Amino acid sequence: MNGAVDLPLGLAELSFDAAGDARVRRSVLPSGVRVLSEQVPGSRSVTIGFWVAVGSRDEQPSASGHPATYGSTHFLEHLLFKGTTTRTALDIAISFDAVGGEHNALTAKEYTCYYAKVQDRDLPMAVAVLADMFTSSRLDAEEFENERGVILEELSMAGDDPADVANERFFEAVLGAHPLGRPIGGNPDTIRAAVRDAVWEHYRANYRPSDLVVTVAGAVDHEVLVAELERALTGAGWDLSVEAAPVERRPVGPAVLEVARPLTVVQRPTEQINLLLGVPGLVATDERRPTMSVLNAIFGSGMSSRLFQQVRERRGLAYSVYSFAPGYSDAGLFGMYAGCSPSKASTVAALMRTELDRLAEHGVTADELRRASGQLAGASALALEDSDTRMSRLGRSELTLGEFADLDEALRRIALVTADDVQALAAELAARPFSLVAVGATEESAFRGAVEAAAPSTDVA
Amino acid sequence: MNGAVDLPLGLAELSFDAAGDARVRRSVLPSGVRVLSEQVPGSRSVTIGFWVAVGSRDEQPSASGHPATYGSTHFLEHLLFKGTTTRTALDIAISFDAVGGEHNALTAKEYTCYYAKVQDRDLPMAVAVLADMFTSSRLDAEEFENERGVILEELSMAGDDPADVANERFFEAVLGAHPLGRPIGGNPDTIRAAVRDAVWEHYRANYRPSDLVVTVAGAVDHEVLVAELERALTGAGWDLSVEAAPVERRPVGPAVLEVARPLTVVQRPTEQINLLLGVPGLVATDERRPTMSVLNAIFGSGMSSRLFQQVRERRGLAYSVYSFAPGYSDAGLFGMYAGCSPSKASTVAALMRTELDRLAEHGVTADELRRASGQLAGASALALEDSDTRMSRLGRSELTLGEFADLDEALRRIALVTADDVQALAAELAARPFSLVAVGATEESAFRGAVEAAAPSTDVA
Repeated sequence: MNGAVDLPLGLAELSFDAAGDARVRRSVLPSGVRVLSEQVPGSRSVTIGFWVAVGSRDEQPSASGHPATYGSTHFLEHLLFKGTTTRTALDIAISFDAVGGEHNALTAKEYTCYYAKVQDRDLPMAVAVLADMFTSSRLDAEEFENERGVILEELSMAGDDPADVANERFFEAVLGAHPLGRPIGGNPDTIRAAVRDAVWEHYRANYRPSDLVVTVAGAVDHEVLVAELERALTGAGWDLSVEAAPVERRPVGPAVLEVARPLTVVQRPTEQINLLLGVPGLVATDERRPTMSVLNAIFGSGMSSRLFQQVRERRGLAYSVYSFAPGYSDAGLFGMYAGCSPSKASTVAALMRTELDRLAEHGVTADELRRASGQLAGASALALEDSDTRMSRLGRSELTLGEFADLDEALRRIALVTADDVQALAAELAARPFSLVAVGATEESAFRGAVEAAAPSTDVA
Repeated sequence: MNGAVDLPLGLAELSFDAAGDARVRRSVLPSGVRVLSEQVPGSRSVTIGFWVAVGSRDEQPSASGHPATYGSTHFLEHLLFKGTTTRTALDIAISFDAVGGEHNALTAKEYTCYYAKVQDRDLPMAVAVLADMFTSSRLDAEEFENERGVILEELSMAGDDPADVANERFFEAVLGAHPLGRPIGGNPDTIRAAVRDAVWEHYRANYRPSDLVVTVAGAVDHEVLVAELERALTGAGWDLSVEAAPVERRPVGPAVLEVARPLTVVQRPTEQINLLLGVPGLVATDERRPTMSVLNAIFGSGMSSRLFQQVRERRGLAYSVYSFAPGYSDAGLFGMYAGCSPSKASTVAALMRTELDRLAEHGVTADELRRASGQLAGASALALEDSDTRMSRLGRSELTLGEFADLDEALRRIALVTADDVQALAAELAARPFSLVAVGATEESAFRGAVEAAAPSTDVA
């Protein structure tokens, strides 16, 4: 079978051929643990991820009454590296370093993922160590204090990166009080106030068999993987004989957002202004996602894109300029970024608005549409050479999308996108309330003109 | 054949099997063009690089008397994307975007590389476009002015990144007036002063058949590649019938360095101090390079390394901490990096010194030595899955090392490194004059203690 497959939440076992002769399989164990694997013929390495559908957006007061600790999901992620009932932090680090493997974790707004990339022969080790971290971390009180210091340093590092600061503020501006608008890592005050017991409760409440999704891509045999995983989880103390259904997927569909904040200026004594301009976008499961991919490719992805050509190539106003369109279960964004000198920032902001309006009013050419298809096809094929990308794709399919679409199916959907579809979406985006965020040596007055040009003009080409 | 092969500079054709069943071949055309390819069975994509052994260190007054323009090599690199006699900048961008390829360039201290990663069927296009850029760029005067603006923005972006600033100052501090100590991109004054004629002369003087090295890895057939390359270069106007020898490799061996600058503080209103501490290291061809790899793995690479354990895991003093050991033809560095709060910076600096002294005095354990071998072997195997890494390895072999060592040979050399070798090298490094660079909200007085502890103490464990 070749194409898209709905991923049911009940007990299921399915398999099919996916892009590049890879083979995708999915099993749901009686305990609710889900396992997805994609075997890539000829591969000598493997990437494995342990996922749980809990991210920063889910932080709220605990069952026992602890107030919400913003950043506690990320704090917990760090603590899983700090030792289990049978392994010290150094033991964990040595396991992967001794074989030259990569080993890290990622806390996102809607999920947390612990992953490793190793040579094929080291997969059993990776399964064992990740299973131990996931099930049996101690969250030792002394390690908790040490790690508080490390996380405060991580927040400081991000705070020193003006592009990072602009990005956090952009999410807040567009999404308002929606939980997706919060920074993933919390802030220094919430991290200083974090208590070990609350993080422990968070761990116990959310790291159960029914929460766990394991995805593996590369040199993997599905049956062997499932057996190893069951052995590792049982060995680490989980009782997999207790039957449970996987946790329900997060409800999807657009949430009602507050009115976006039109203008945010963060003064910093930097050389450049980090500028972000955008609007609410599409949720991850929106059927117009392929249209958004095409729109974003034409508008702001790659050196031939309109933004790159107008802002950088023709006018030399910026070095880095692009657009982006992240999607989550109940909200999304469409944004445009540029880094430029203070004297150019209002010009760049106006150009960005003008270009989006132009796309909304005059649409795209047949050439652009054809090139976008080629761009998305080629870039996807190259990206899927990495088992990392395939492992992540499986996780996203399971946790967010509820279906797995292989490369052929994804490209078939892209090929169905018409110029009218792109123009209609551009018109919808251009009519939404804009938010502008500028971080740098500037003031609000510099952007009043760009913000007030908010009503789409009919004379922008 | 399996192992290391000297790369002669005369006319030569050789081939041998390298790691992972790949096959390396090298041809020197009568015109002096060198072509190295590594065919990776089963690969569906390919990475290609056009290299020239000219980097920022080579910038000097021109033959016609133009004064040296620091940053002109990087300026030239940008201009090669801005149009040829038969292709506009947009044509070049579209060529790669339309197939979803990656296309970029890199200016380094000792070379410049223009590269692309594409699907196998797009290799002829990549050869044609890169050959056109390399041979026939116009350096149009109007594009020159636009690009000056882009490069000034790129420098501003780097200037806003405190880790980048610290790194530039560290090279200056350790290498002094040596040309390798200069920043690659020049500075705003030199870029504002750059004139098109000087960059044009630089281009004409250094982009000749005898300078060109083409390296390709992935889905490539050597004979077909050579034929396509000859056709593309000839089509773009080069006369390949004129015989020439490749330019001689840059002389190697340690240069005499000035006395390093012990303390550099750049005041910035950032949350963290970006701290670098280090000494002159080994040149790229030093026979102790494998020892340095082992030393660096044990000391500061990975979560089980000594620096990570001492600075982050045990004390929570930093989020990012590691060591590094870049090597060039006639100089090298050994450095330690950490980002941390101002109140912790002198403690971290002292800890780094102490750890290096401890390595020098007490050496490494057999366990550490064994793990370092495993780490380097595994990490190399994973890295070589990317055709990018293999393409770069071929370029470095040709331009810097003068030999190609496959993975087996590289690991054989690593396995020969003894604990005594590592300790002896650590002792040599620890006895060299230290440079400390701190960028952030701090002052020189904060680091006097760390700098004055320069004489290795015997009581540091």
